[in-house]
Amino acid sequence: MEIKTYLKEQQQRVDEHLASLMPDAAGLFQNHIASMRYSLFVGGKRVRPILCLAAAEAVNPSEATRQKTLPVACALECIHTYSLIHDDLPAMDDDDLRRGKPTNHTIFGEAAAILAGDGLLTYAFDLFSGQATSGIPDADRIRIINLVARAAGPLGMVGGQSLDILYEEKQIGYETLRTIHRSKTGALITASVVSGAIVAGAGPEQEAALQTYGGHIGLAFQIVDDLLDIEATTEELGKPAGSDMKTGKSTYPSLFGRGTSRTMAREAVQAAIVALSPFDRQADPLKALANYIVDRTK
Amino acid sequence: MEIKTYLKEQQQRVDEHLASLMPDAAGLFQNHIASMRYSLFVGGKRVRPILCLAAAEAVNPSEATRQKTLPVACALECIHTYSLIHDDLPAMDDDDLRRGKPTNHTIFGEAAAILAGDGLLTYAFDLFSGQATSGIPDADRIRIINLVARAAGPLGMVGGQSLDILYEEKQIGYETLRTIHRSKTGALITASVVSGAIVAGAGPEQEAALQTYGGHIGLAFQIVDDLLDIEATTEELGKPAGSDMKTGKSTYPSLFGRGTSRTMAREAVQAAIVALSPFDRQADPLKALANYIVDRTK
Repeated sequence: MEIKTYLKEQQQRVDEHLASLMPDAAGLFQNHIASMRYSLFVGGKRVRPILCLAAAEAVNPSEATRQKTLPVACALECIHTYSLIHDDLPAMDDDDLRRGKPTNHTIFGEAAAILAGDGLLTYAFDLFSGQATSGIPDADRIRIINLVARAAGPLGMVGGQSLDILYEEKQIGYETLRTIHRSKTGALITASVVSGAIVAGAGPEQEAALQTYGGHIGLAFQIVDDLLDIEATTEELGKPAGSDMKTGKSTYPSLFGRGTSRTMAREAVQAAIVALSPFDRQADPLKALANYIVDRTK
Repeated sequence: MEIKTYLKEQQQRVDEHLASLMPDAAGLFQNHIASMRYSLFVGGKRVRPILCLAAAEAVNPSEATRQKTLPVACALECIHTYSLIHDDLPAMDDDDLRRGKPTNHTIFGEAAAILAGDGLLTYAFDLFSGQATSGIPDADRIRIINLVARAAGPLGMVGGQSLDILYEEKQIGYETLRTIHRSKTGALITASVVSGAIVAGAGPEQEAALQTYGGHIGLAFQIVDDLLDIEATTEELGKPAGSDMKTGKSTYPSLFGRGTSRTMAREAVQAAIVALSPFDRQADPLKALANYIVDRTK
């Protein structure tokens, strides 16, 4: 399959669906809605929603399943976008550039950016429980909400970001680095894959296989992120390159060197693909996505 | 009934249950958990969880119902606490004092405070969907999650806070002031009451009555907040008094004067109590709470 065409089609689906789900930037709340919409539509790769859609497709490739999965996928992107807005704040990583565009707070100010993040996070749970997902049985919605809340919460993404800041200028060992990555990035990626599986009605074995897949690609994703911070230019990344080295952050390449890190990423992708063995050709997009994650240049 | 004894008992129940529900401040995430716990246990009045418990009690006064309601009540307090932490940030209201104690960011720093808020908000949805609330039918949990996500989201509490900041130094009319209050404070108060009603198995009429009650006490609560900002001392409030006047914020007393504002608050409380007419003596705590809200001194 042609992964670039697949990604482009899925991105477009996610973008269109997101646009239809977000409240209009009109009326009294227009500034707040505009700040949320700005970061949502500033040009993300949509990795998490696409993983969610591809996982659902691996279990059940019907159009009806895709339509049920789309609002879940969009809610995941809301959570990812909120985390980027807050990570970029002056009190956190203090980044002016994200996806090649000015970060939220440089346009709307710090207060509005904090609230845009808060709004997106809360809106995700509105989507998971509201009209948009009413075609999914309540028991499945509850499972997805709990899965995502844990992945994004104090022992997941938020906790990971707090560790990331805490250890920014300290040397840390592999165990700690792995915990930070697992919580900060891996947990929501895995939750995205498993959410798609749940919507599509995966059996316990399929779900377990997809959870394993998610864990491996989450690791690969983070290693490649660390490598790109060294190897890519700011223009390619759309955000400042070389920032990890500048802040003295421990990363895969700083602990293992670039060559070994690259090998570890490839091994993780291989393990992810092996985990897909219970699935037939319907899992081809997930395989292509795993390879894309390690071969990407931004 | 003796409202002070009732409040004290309910506060203690909420505090104990909250302590049991929050993750331990140990291990790698200890700083993050400690910052969340700090603001949760710095001494809140627990108005929202107590309203939730009292609404459930009005519908069904059994101990079993109370036990089912407690985790929902605690999740509501997590959301309220997150909103206070973010509101106090330097980029927002820049307050050093809250509940008579240093605000989260003055102790843990801005980055940790932003993340403490994010963590509490996300953890609330973990509670609404996890083991703690598993005794509540999934359909009811989904309704509660959606109700709360809307009340706290872009067209609710977060949107209201963004308006509050936007209009801080501008003169606004009554309609706008009312919208700000309804979204910023009223929505979550009403959602707290209705959540309790849902857990207790309220019928449609009971639920509608409690929603009306919630709307009226939300209004009364905000008018009294505005009055206390003028009338009370910083020591009594536990946060800086007179801050509205200093920032030129439009408030009930600035639009209507103190006397009329006090009358409006009393009328709202009366309307709230009238809304409780479908209930018998089991709604006495809700009545007492309505009177407490207008008579309180902090």
